[in-house]
Amino acid sequence: MSRPEDDPALRAIASRRTARRFDPDRPLPDDRLARLLALAALAPSPMNLQPWRFVVVRDHRNRRRLRACTFGEARLTQAPVALIVLAYPGADRVDLAEVLGRMLELGAISPEEAARVRATAAREWARGDGPTLRAVRSAMLAAATLMIAAEASGLASCWLEGFEEEKLREGFGIPDDHAICGLIALGHAAEAAPFPGRFDLDHSCFGEHFGRPWSPEEPEG
Amino acid sequence: MSRPEDDPALRAIASRRTARRFDPDRPLPDDRLARLLALAALAPSPMNLQPWRFVVVRDHRNRRRLRACTFGEARLTQAPVALIVLAYPGADRVDLAEVLGRMLELGAISPEEAARVRATAAREWARGDGPTLRAVRSAMLAAATLMIAAEASGLASCWLEGFEEEKLREGFGIPDDHAICGLIALGHAAEAAPFPGRFDLDHSCFGEHFGRPWSPEEPEG
Repeated sequence: MSRPEDDPALRAIASRRTARRFDPDRPLPDDRLARLLALAALAPSPMNLQPWRFVVVRDHRNRRRLRACTFGEARLTQAPVALIVLAYPGADRVDLAEVLGRMLELGAISPEEAARVRATAAREWARGDGPTLRAVRSAMLAAATLMIAAEASGLASCWLEGFEEEKLREGFGIPDDHAICGLIALGHAAEAAPFPGRFDLDHSCFGEHFGRPWSPEEPEG
Repeated sequence: MSRPEDDPALRAIASRRTARRFDPDRPLPDDRLARLLALAALAPSPMNLQPWRFVVVRDHRNRRRLRACTFGEARLTQAPVALIVLAYPGADRVDLAEVLGRMLELGAISPEEAARVRATAAREWARGDGPTLRAVRSAMLAAATLMIAAEASGLASCWLEGFEEEKLREGFGIPDDHAICGLIALGHAAEAAPFPGRFDLDHSCFGEHFGRPWSPEEPEG
């Protein structure tokens, strides 16, 4: 396998750094933003329910209000776009019929399989740790996809989780039945944060069983 | 902005499809897997705590046992590698000192900033919806990164969330203080799932405020 830097597709992943500062003078046109959001929506989700939602905040006064929900995060007013990333645990109730209808149209599911999904969806969606975590997991797949797509398009991003939830809900009308995952500031980097390092793989990877070492040959790069 | 197909990283995002079947005869060498896991670890996380963990399951008997935790998901035995994706809510207590030490070594943080992070980490980590969701969010950023990197490397993946939690914990020694996010089957696709469609952006994107339409110009591609 080639080194990440040799492969342009892996380079976006390898080179992505959180923006430390954004250039407030470089805009992000709507069509580019729409492209990124459409790519984010290509993330997978259980039953294709796509339980992510994005509030696009462009207006400068609104970004100032958003900043005030985050203990003064300056990147939210520097960057031309801020996104509030939400997860909707009620997606199975609200969206399943339309999702299955479209899949039938596209020939992506058989009528029998659609009937089976319809019959079991509520149980599948609630299984294990439940709808909120299930929706949050999918929303985060979409968020990561968006940030990698941004990097690949010459843009920079910053993932933010520090906010006052009640203030944010009230300020942007976010209903209690939607989970707030975090914020993404999006634009052109004026300065990237320095690389903070990562643990070696033996810290975070186990082999065959939790707690047992996984010791591959060292990757080439 | 170029069309997604023009950029290799955007192409990987645009072309990724869940594998419907894997080719059981095409192996995934350890060094390629290590590269993917190292790329996954480049995902961002609050305070760089990297609260993801991966159990790499290669052994065929173990993949059979894993399959038995998932109501018989055949892709877990077809694909040469299965990953159990975990999130560790205790990462702030266990890993912060080492993370900050490494950041200081790399010049990625000043001693004053490190002291501030040290003093506020427990509170930051517990803020809002708490450590479990915080760890899960980061683990999902890493999972998405891994699946996009796999696609960009000519591999295919399948994200799976249907499993019997207690059986999986018992079978693979996963402690109760680690959240199980899901499973990834990883290998070469024998057949991709057909594209199931996605909602238009106006379904999932709002403008300035929850519930208000966001209506960009149509993206070019």
